[in-house]
Amino acid sequence: MNTLLLDSDDVDEHAVLAAVIDAVEEAFGAFERGDTQMPAKSYIDLPQYNGDFRSMPAYLDTGDWDAAGLKWVNVHPDNPADHDLPTVLGTMIYSDPETAFPLAIMDGTTLTMKRTGAAAAVATDYLAVEDATSLGLVGAGVQSYTQLEAISEVRPIEEVVVSDPDDERVERFVETYEDRFDVRGGSISEAGHCDVLSTVTPVEDPIVGPDDVGDHTHINAIGADAEGKHELEDALLEAARIVIDDHEQCTHSGEINVPYHEGVLTDADIHGEIGELVVGSKAGRTAETGNTVFDSTGLAIQDVAAARVVYERASADGDGHPFDIVGVDDSA
Amino acid sequence: MNTLLLDSDDVDEHAVLAAVIDAVEEAFGAFERGDTQMPAKSYIDLPQYNGDFRSMPAYLDTGDWDAAGLKWVNVHPDNPADHDLPTVLGTMIYSDPETAFPLAIMDGTTLTMKRTGAAAAVATDYLAVEDATSLGLVGAGVQSYTQLEAISEVRPIEEVVVSDPDDERVERFVETYEDRFDVRGGSISEAGHCDVLSTVTPVEDPIVGPDDVGDHTHINAIGADAEGKHELEDALLEAARIVIDDHEQCTHSGEINVPYHEGVLTDADIHGEIGELVVGSKAGRTAETGNTVFDSTGLAIQDVAAARVVYERASADGDGHPFDIVGVDDSA
Repeated sequence: MNTLLLDSDDVDEHAVLAAVIDAVEEAFGAFERGDTQMPAKSYIDLPQYNGDFRSMPAYLDTGDWDAAGLKWVNVHPDNPADHDLPTVLGTMIYSDPETAFPLAIMDGTTLTMKRTGAAAAVATDYLAVEDATSLGLVGAGVQSYTQLEAISEVRPIEEVVVSDPDDERVERFVETYEDRFDVRGGSISEAGHCDVLSTVTPVEDPIVGPDDVGDHTHINAIGADAEGKHELEDALLEAARIVIDDHEQCTHSGEINVPYHEGVLTDADIHGEIGELVVGSKAGRTAETGNTVFDSTGLAIQDVAAARVVYERASADGDGHPFDIVGVDDSA
Repeated sequence: MNTLLLDSDDVDEHAVLAAVIDAVEEAFGAFERGDTQMPAKSYIDLPQYNGDFRSMPAYLDTGDWDAAGLKWVNVHPDNPADHDLPTVLGTMIYSDPETAFPLAIMDGTTLTMKRTGAAAAVATDYLAVEDATSLGLVGAGVQSYTQLEAISEVRPIEEVVVSDPDDERVERFVETYEDRFDVRGGSISEAGHCDVLSTVTPVEDPIVGPDDVGDHTHINAIGADAEGKHELEDALLEAARIVIDDHEQCTHSGEINVPYHEGVLTDADIHGEIGELVVGSKAGRTAETGNTVFDSTGLAIQDVAAARVVYERASADGDGHPFDIVGVDDSA
């Protein structure tokens, strides 16, 4: 009995964003209904290597399907300079919840980008103006590509403004998309005056203020993933309708973690969780809504939901590399 | 850059017990010295499938080497009858702590048996009489094989008595080893009067009492792995020198969990942790010691230590299946 091995190219091919967005939306709904199990991430801190490992197990039941799995992922910021390796290296084990058989083992790095883009797309669908056609990006790293790919699945994006102090990264981004979009480099404020803005930087001093965004811009705050990081100024957050993915994770390490711990933001300033918008217990954007912010930290159920899409599609296409890791046929 | 895939046969071949025993002993020592990180196991409970998943991440630094990894494992007791699959299916990701690169992904089921046998061997080395030549086994399932293989690495075992109500299992065991040992089926009491006894059953009502063992028998209590399970009668435990692997795990789900929660056993009845014997802060067997009991629940650091042995040996021999799961060469 084989386990399907899927490398980063396989994941890239089969994590079809339209399907991953649907799966992640269903996962958020299951989370809100209490039909998920997601133990808190376990951390192993290795200051001697300036790195850490995180273990992210999860199970979810959407009603239509259920799925289980675990992502083992890390953050080692010295990897690019010292080891010619990415900072983040994820491995995902996707398991049959009924038997625990490891159906697939796949690259978790590409998977993480896809499910993160998908989460922004789900939030954008609930929170951006209906006729949004422009997308701004602050930061032109790898995640900005997935943001554009995913968000253009839920809104007819035509115009894209990308802002990054690194001209080469901007140029590379523009070249990649100039055939498909009206895309150009620009200032943070030009990016922020689009209908939708995604911020994908690791800054600890906010770089986007209230004057940098349009009156009705929806903002996906993607970059903050640790205590001390935030991209949006307090005044922007205070005035916006804030939607989070998970209270514990967002207050600990999401966009709101710094102002929340300083008491600048309280629970009363949080409109709700994205799952509440999905199930309809909280409103998304209404006629009166100005700016909206989605604080995305990334949930283990997103990984499992995305892994299911990859596994189902790769299996159907006969892709991937079957491997009998368990050796069930040999066992007693 | 490749990750080495190792199936159950690869793990069986390269988890050479003498080396795994040494590695597990070093891991116990590192644990006692505080040079390990082992977050509590995360559980996902799936009563609808009568199963659960456990996530077991760990890091250890023995001074000579360090290692990191994670085992994703389950207990699904209906698997054999309903799905022709083993109850337990483990997958191990073995990672470079310096970069988090997944050096190997290997079958965790065989690995678990090996490291469990190795733990019993380490405890036997510290707690059995020096001239032990006989080993009793209560239970003739798969783990009993590894117990014999491992314990015979630390004591010159000649005589083996295996006790199990299933005659076929006893016969299979005897046939496997009759060329190497003086091995026969027998009663629990006959097994228990050997110099060393390993109990490897899942019972909830104890089956080994004080009269079933010799005056100086060392007992490895391996079977209990969940609340409510215990194999040894309270009177036997009360009279014995009890050594545990980890206080939290043993009082929660090890051999002592039931009497501990009933107040029959208290912390005063626990002689120490195996790591204390390894580093020499607590004595093992002395001239006055009667029965000794090792309560083995299985630590995540054992898996990582055993995985290191497998990876290093398989790499050196050019075995296993290299697979570029991360796709580092393709990344920016």
